[in-house]
Parts: sequence; structure tokens; C-alpha cells
Amino acid sequence: MKRVLITGYEPFGGDDYNPSLEIAKELNGQTYGEYTYVYKPIPVNRFQCIEELHAAIAEFEPQIVICVGLAWNRQGISVERVAINVADFPIPDNAGYQAMNETIVEGGPNAYFSELPIKSIVGALREAGIPSQISNTAGTYCCNILMYTLLDAIHKGCSVKKGGFLHIPFETKQAAQKVEQVPFMDIQTMIEAVRIAAEVSIDTERDEMTIDSGEVS
Amino acid sequence: MKRVLITGYEPFGGDDYNPSLEIAKELNGQTYGEYTYVYKPIPVNRFQCIEELHAAIAEFEPQIVICVGLAWNRQGISVERVAINVADFPIPDNAGYQAMNETIVEGGPNAYFSELPIKSIVGALREAGIPSQISNTAGTYCCNILMYTLLDAIHKGCSVKKGGFLHIPFETKQAAQKVEQVPFMDIQTMIEAVRIAAEVSIDTERDEMTIDSGEVS
Amino acid sequence: MKRVLITGYEPFGGDDYNPSLEIAKELNGQTYGEYTYVYKPIPVNRFQCIEELHAAIAEFEPQIVICVGLAWNRQGISVERVAINVADFPIPDNAGYQAMNETIVEGGPNAYFSELPIKSIVGALREAGIPSQISNTAGTYCCNILMYTLLDAIHKGCSVKKGGFLHIPFETKQAAQKVEQVPFMDIQTMIEAVRIAAEVSIDTERDEMTIDSGEVS
Amino acid sequence: MKRVLITGYEPFGGDDYNPSLEIAKELNGQTYGEYTYVYKPIPVNRFQCIEELHAAIAEFEPQIVICVGLAWNRQGISVERVAINVADFPIPDNAGYQAMNETIVEGGPNAYFSELPIKSIVGALREAGIPSQISNTAGTYCCNILMYTLLDAIHKGCSVKKGGFLHIPFETKQAAQKVEQVPFMDIQTMIEAVRIAAEVSIDTERDEMTIDSGEVS
Repeated sequence: MKRVLITGYEPFGGDDYNPSLEIAKELNGQTYGEYTYVYKPIPVNRFQCIEELHAAIAEFEPQIVICVGLAWNRQGISVERVAINVADFPIPDNAGYQAMNETIVEGGPNAYFSELPIKSIVGALREAGIPSQISNTAGTYCCNILMYTLLDAIHKGCSVKKGGFLHIPFETKQAAQKVEQVPFMDIQTMIEAVRIAAEVSIDTERDEMTIDSGEVS
Repeated sequence: MKRVLITGYEPFGGDDYNPSLEIAKELNGQTYGEYTYVYKPIPVNRFQCIEELHAAIAEFEPQIVICVGLAWNRQGISVERVAINVADFPIPDNAGYQAMNETIVEGGPNAYFSELPIKSIVGALREAGIPSQISNTAGTYCCNILMYTLLDAIHKGCSVKKGGFLHIPFETKQAAQKVEQVPFMDIQTMIEAVRIAAEVSIDTERDEMTIDSGEVS
Repeated sequence: MKRVLITGYEPFGGDDYNPSLEIAKELNGQTYGEYTYVYKPIPVNRFQCIEELHAAIAEFEPQIVICVGLAWNRQGISVERVAINVADFPIPDNAGYQAMNETIVEGGPNAYFSELPIKSIVGALREAGIPSQISNTAGTYCCNILMYTLLDAIHKGCSVKKGGFLHIPFETKQAAQKVEQVPFMDIQTMIEAVRIAAEVSIDTERDEMTIDSGEVS
Repeated sequence: MKRVLITGYEPFGGDDYNPSLEIAKELNGQTYGEYTYVYKPIPVNRFQCIEELHAAIAEFEPQIVICVGLAWNRQGISVERVAINVADFPIPDNAGYQAMNETIVEGGPNAYFSELPIKSIVGALREAGIPSQISNTAGTYCCNILMYTLLDAIHKGCSVKKGGFLHIPFETKQAAQKVEQVPFMDIQTMIEAVRIAAEVSIDTERDEMTIDSGEVS
């Protein structure tokens, strides 16, 4: 049996809910072809996020890993292109630790590119009516650490063959509680989006590279 | 029998779909207490929008009117507070006419305040998990014309006792087709939002005034 | 001798500097044609702002009044079109008072339009290389109170013949101290902008109405 | 004699002015300590930008290179942290060529980190009253190509010892001509910013790493 591991984060930054975790839980146990979806909650913690991802890969021996995390200020589903070998935190993690320009993996490459078919995923999401775009930065907080750690594991020969990171906006009900206006998406649409990303990752051998990359800069 | 008239707009500005019209159609014929919902499509046209609203009021003799329109750059449901006696178009209407600093109603007051319980509506929407806020400008395009025309009719003694305007974002599927990132909301959530606004308008005698008004300026 | 009164605000909302006050001080004593510029600092205070404006009009007997205030999230110079008869505060004023849906002038009209040549000012500013646009809302905080109070005084027959409100962004040095990215403009450019607005107000008999009004909504 | 090479871009994307080129021209011939500033205009062209940078390095044999480019939607000075080995164009270049997911340097690393003291530069700019922040993506257009090419040349042992990329906003007068509201900065402030970045690069041996990195994601 083959497995797709979906990871979500525990709440952080003052919120008591994190849609990424709800998505991962919801897909847990579902199947697509010969693949079964499993899930793992990841703490918003500089070092434990790395340990927990390694532990989940060892436990489930998945062929595909899709990490999902919340971004505060992006419309739709951001499919990340690249993770960089830097931990540089704008706010402390849940344990109060604030990394300052740290290297994630000593001697590791400066960056890894996503091992998901990112443009095929964006194309399939738009086709399904879900706003989506390629993102060229996963930041330098825990999301970037997790994505870099996953890709480093893939490149060092673990069970995982494909993997990458999706950023999602706030869930609609969560956004309704905020004073400021923030981007949002319904949880059902986000579950569907991650499911589509997983299915495209299972089905696609190589990326078709047909969607443009967004901001001119 | 009493009626709530819901108006939506025909597509404009390059889009071939306008969620405001779909919402109005969907609610058409539904009932709440002694009220039945009726609908009217409104053209994005400097002068016809006024005529069509007057015709719909004459035809349906509604007690309550809620006009709904699309705004390009606002998160969630904007409940408009005020309409001003100005038509000043940043782009031409669907007939190619571009109003320049025109008065909507000669001799009319500079502004009318919404005759909906706007803060109760925002409160009920947030309670229902739908992002919403008071807006202090309905612009100077057709939406403002329609809102001003409606409130002018109310103040001049037509059948309508309560009325106002809601701005909605793009529908999710519509946003998925756009190159730029724009705010969006699912059509089902927007239908629910307008239904809630109508029910609160039916049920509420006076506004409770408990929600703050957003931007500091 | 004729006078142009320029008002600026005391600092508020956690800042210890308010560029609107610096602009007013800088222009104080300068002249244009038969006009001399005078200035008045206005407290960010629900009731005192009204008293201080009335006191300044009584003291200086100006023919023209331009009120200037800081907006947190707008690029360039916003020339306000309209003030509404509502005080509804998203945050408390400097005395800790938070108005909730209050009427500014009992029995006053719902709104007053600016008595400045707003489109001529926007045109002149752009011509001078200064980003500017018409704004259709001055909010519902102290800036709107001040603008409404000024226009109410004009309509009730005080010395003032022309008046209105300009919103400005943060000063560049002030923005440099903030963690978040905010719009900004150099203080010299803002001084020049208010000077141009005053000169256009002095020189222009009626507005030329040639600039479009911005957001489609 | 030692040299700092400053590059700027020719106009693109419908504009007939590019402030990055004006900055580079203005600093040309000025000196700081034993360093003289020289400049080179770079075409917005997928392949010629690479050739022109190589030619300029061969011609001037600079010790330090600072490339400057225009970003459409960022407040203040963005000091870029990283360039990635991807050319993926959202719009065609000035020759009409639109790269799609191309590798810039075959066999090159996925990314290079800036060889400028990026946090010291941000700190010095803020100290000087100029809004600035670290950016974690230089995009995938010509700016990223130029930054990657520069860092690749440094790593392959050319004359250059330090180098990197700064993104700047529109110039104030340029922004004043646009219908939409865009971030902007005065040309004199931007010249001062690039001068400060050059001086900090000359003076700083290693980066002090004290400024946080911005967006949480």
C-alpha cells in the first residue's frame, strides 16, 4: 500500500484554530487509487517541526508528502516553488524561540525546488474553480523550515519521492471573527484543493509548465 | 402578502458573470414569515438603472428592498452606510456613457443613510461565520446611483419602508479565472449572507449599533 | 488682509509625530497674493476638535480653511469629496472616548460636499508630480467630524467661503520606523501639496471636473 | 583604484522612465574612500541582461556590484536575500520573449544568497529615515536573472567580491501619472538609499543580522 502524508500545523500567532490541521485530519484515511492519505500535526516550533516530520516519514513511509500551512495575507492557494536554507523569524515560535538568520541544514544547498508538479497543480485548481497561484517564497519561518526539511529528506534518499508545500488563507469563519479584513476560503474548498493537489501529484509524471508566475519584479 | 425585493446587476467591466444577479435569482420565490422574495435584474447603465428600480418598485410594491452589487477589491460583505447625490464614473457604463460629477436627483439631499439595520446585519453575518463590515462609501458609480435612488424613493413615500445596499466580492470560480489575485467568496455563502441581511431587516425594528466602523482616517 | 487657515492634528494612535501638524506650522506666516497662511493645532478629541475649529475661525476670520489629517493606508494625497453627519469611532480618541453612531450636528444635513475645487486640486497636484486622488469617504473618526464641522460653519454663514479636507500618508522618516510596510511621502512634498491645494483654492472660481474618481464599486 | 558598479534598467512594461537607471547615472563618477562608482544600463531582455552584466564586470573590474530594479508593488527599498536558478516570466521582456520555467545557469545551484550585508543595509537605511525591508524573493523575471548571474560570477571567481540586488518603488512623479494607486519614493531619497547601501557594503565585513524578516508565512 502506498501513502500520501498530509501535514497541518497547530494553531499559532494568537489564533485557536488552524485550517491546515483540519484539512489534514479530514483527508486522513481517504484513498485515491492505490494511495491512502495519512496525516500528522506539526508544532509551530523551530526544532520540533523538523523532528515531527522526520518521525512521520519514518512511521508512515509515504511516497508523497504535502505540507500545508497558513499564510496571513494571500488570496487563494499558494503553491510554493522553493524553500531556502534559512530560518529567520519575524515573530517567535510557539515555544517563544525566535531564530535569527540560522541555517536549517548545515552544509545543505541554499535552496530546494518543490518536488511537486506545481504548475499542473495550479492549473488543476483553477480548472476546478479554486483561485491559486505559484508563490516564489515560503518565507523564513516554520513553513519554510518544514518545506526545506522535507525536500532535504527526499534528496537524501528517504521513502518520499515527491513532496512540497501549499500555503492557504484563513478559513471563512475564522476571518469573520477578525477586526481587520483578511483573505479567506471555505474549509470545504480548501479540503478539495489539497485533495486535488494530492491527486495531481499522484497522477503527474512531470510538470507541464504552462502557468505564468505572477508578480513582475 | 409582503415582499422583499432583491436586485442584482448584469455583468460589466469585462466579466460575463455577476454573482449579485445569481443571488437575487436564487432567492426569488423563497419566503420568510409573511414575506416573499422577488427579484429584478438591473443594467449597469447610468439612467436605465434608475428606471428599472422604479419599475420594479411599482410592479412588486415591496416593503423592503436590498440592492446587491459587485465590488472589485473588498474582502467579505460590505454593508453600505451612505449613498451620495453624485454620479462620477471612473469607467463608462455598459452603454459607454461616463458620467462626470453629475447630480442624481436635482434638489435632492447630499446623502441618504441606509434604511437597513446595518450594524445588526454585520453582527448577524459575523455570528453566522461570514466576514462582513460597514462600508462608508458606495462609490460614485451605478451602485451608488441605485442606492441613492432607492433611498430617495423611500423618503418620498413609496411602498418601501426599509432599504439599502450590499457590496459583495467576486465569486470563487470567477476569481479563479483571473490573473491578478482578488478577494472572493463562494456563491452559496453570499446567498446565505443576503438571506440573513433580509431576515435581519425584516426582524429588526431599530439598529443596535454595536459594531465598530473599520478604517481609522 | 485675507487668511487661509490650515489645521493639523496632534499625534495619535501610538505615534509621537503627526505630519499634518508640521505642514500647518511650516506654512504659517507665508503668503500668496493677498492671502496669509495661519495655522491651528487640533486635538484628536471627539468634542474639543469642534471647539478648537470654531475658536480658530473666530480668531482668524479666514476666507479659506484647509484641514489636513493623517490616513494610515492611502497612497498620495487624498482630497476628500464629502463629510457625513456621523461620529462612529473604530478606536477611542486621545481622551479615551469612543463615539458610537453619534450625530455630529443635531438636525444637520446627512452630508456636506467639500467646498474646495477638489478635481482642480487633484489635477494641479498630479501636474506638479505629486500622487493624488479624490476620496469618497473621510471615515467616521475625528477627521470626518472636523470636515463636517467646517462645512456646517460655512453653510451657516461664518467668514469662511471655501473649505475642505486633505488626507495625507505617513511621513517617510515615520514610516521607516514601522515594522509593517505603510504608504509614505516626504514632508517637503506634503508641504508643497498643501500649498498647491491652497493656491488652487484661492485661484479657482469653480471646479473643472475633469478627473475620474477612482475605485469602481 | 577600486570600483562599485551600479546597474539600472531601461524602461519596460509601458513606462518610459525607469528610476533605477537614473540612480545609477547620478552616482556615476562619485567616490567614497578609495572607491569610485561606475554605472551600466541593463536591457530588460532575457539574454542580453546577462551579456551586458558580464561585459560591465569585464570592463570595469569592480570589487562590488549593486544591481537596482523597479518592483511595482512594494513600499520602500527591498533588499533581496536570494536569487533562484529560474527564469519564468509573467510578461514578455522588451524583445517580446517570455521565458517559461527556464534554468538560468545549467548545472548551477538552485539559489545564491546575496553577498551584500543585507541586514546592515536595512538597518542603515531605517536609521537614515528611509523605509526598507528584507525581501525573500526577487521574482522570476529579469531582476532575478541579473541577481543570479551576478552571484554566479562572484562564486566563479571574477573580480567582484560583494554583490546583490535592491528593488525600488516607482519614482514619485512617475506614480503621479498613474490612474491606480502605487507605492512611490522620491528620486533623491532613492539615490541616497543606493549610496548608503554601497557605503555599508564597502564598510561592513560581515552582516550583523539584527533585523527581522517581515511576513509571517
